[in-house]
Amino acid sequence: MLKIFYTPGTAAFASHIALEEAGADYEAVLVDFKTAEQTKPEYLKINPKGRVPALVTDKGILTETPAILFYIAQMYPEKNLAPLDDPYALAQIQSFNAYICATLHVAHAHKQRGSRWANEESSFADMRSKVTETVSASFRLIENELFKGPWVGGENYSIADPYLFTVSRWMEGDDIDPADFPKIHDHRNRMQDRPAVARVLPLHAR
Amino acid sequence: MLKIFYTPGTAAFASHIALEEAGADYEAVLVDFKTAEQTKPEYLKINPKGRVPALVTDKGILTETPAILFYIAQMYPEKNLAPLDDPYALAQIQSFNAYICATLHVAHAHKQRGSRWANEESSFADMRSKVTETVSASFRLIENELFKGPWVGGENYSIADPYLFTVSRWMEGDDIDPADFPKIHDHRNRMQDRPAVARVLPLHAR
Repeated sequence: MLKIFYTPGTAAFASHIALEEAGADYEAVLVDFKTAEQTKPEYLKINPKGRVPALVTDKGILTETPAILFYIAQMYPEKNLAPLDDPYALAQIQSFNAYICATLHVAHAHKQRGSRWANEESSFADMRSKVTETVSASFRLIENELFKGPWVGGENYSIADPYLFTVSRWMEGDDIDPADFPKIHDHRNRMQDRPAVARVLPLHAR
Repeated sequence: MLKIFYTPGTAAFASHIALEEAGADYEAVLVDFKTAEQTKPEYLKINPKGRVPALVTDKGILTETPAILFYIAQMYPEKNLAPLDDPYALAQIQSFNAYICATLHVAHAHKQRGSRWANEESSFADMRSKVTETVSASFRLIENELFKGPWVGGENYSIADPYLFTVSRWMEGDDIDPADFPKIHDHRNRMQDRPAVARVLPLHAR
């Protein structure tokens, strides 16, 4: 059985949704950031990066959201969670997910995780002051260039959709008005209505 | 014919090596960062992110290194650049590449690209002062946990290898001594000896 380690409010939500969409047999295990459980030796044995998500499989442990999402899509091909037989379309999905993890999520992380990249309180304040601008720029690129509609990759729902949904829920916290991004806003509303999302949403409320 | 847009000293080197390893029919086009060519309207039509690499295919344009690398592996399956028939092994390669793009490369970027995430010169100086520590931490995780040897994914060379090689060449510039990371250092030396790498290396000298 698969086991997903997650924390509310994190990117782990995307992988959790994908497991649910896949109809996977899995267990969800809470990692409590409030007690810094992710930094304790017990969790570092699971994920030495001290982050979530981590997916325990019968072959070993996987980390990094784009990789976990793609693994789920591959393991449940009948669920059509990625265009597995179309290299270009699949690469576009991977490109979208890489952009979220390396650009949008990183921009967002400068709000509360500035100590990853600097030491001074003045730098953290400076970083925080720019988050609305940088995260908005990422959503603007998605809204105007990357999002095909009605789903991220076009006609078919894919592993890019729970990832966009996960980060689009951070908008208000980053002082971004979802109404400024109508396609993403509409996508977020439609995602909330999916049964698989509704089932796991309560676990990810902060 | 494929076309790769690249700039010396950037992550584009990884995709360029992969094209060469694949024996692809492609053209390499220099994007001159010294004249900020990546910010000009002509290039933004190719990649609205204003970054390299960008891979022009007959179906459209791909960006983000992990996605381009995976596309090349899929298009030339006979070259065995990724374990395409083993979902877990493939996810591990994707996980490695996601870690490079979202953590190691991001840490490195705080040296010269602090203006992406802050506004004040004092913040940039603070960020620069932490780069050796943060990039070293990423290489330490790779050295101790992720690298299987003799190649990143184990016995078989894959699309994770040119990516590690590309970023490991940034060590000295980030005041990191390669000798502190013997597996990565040895990997770098062996990569340089590969004919495909030697053919494109001169184009990526800064």
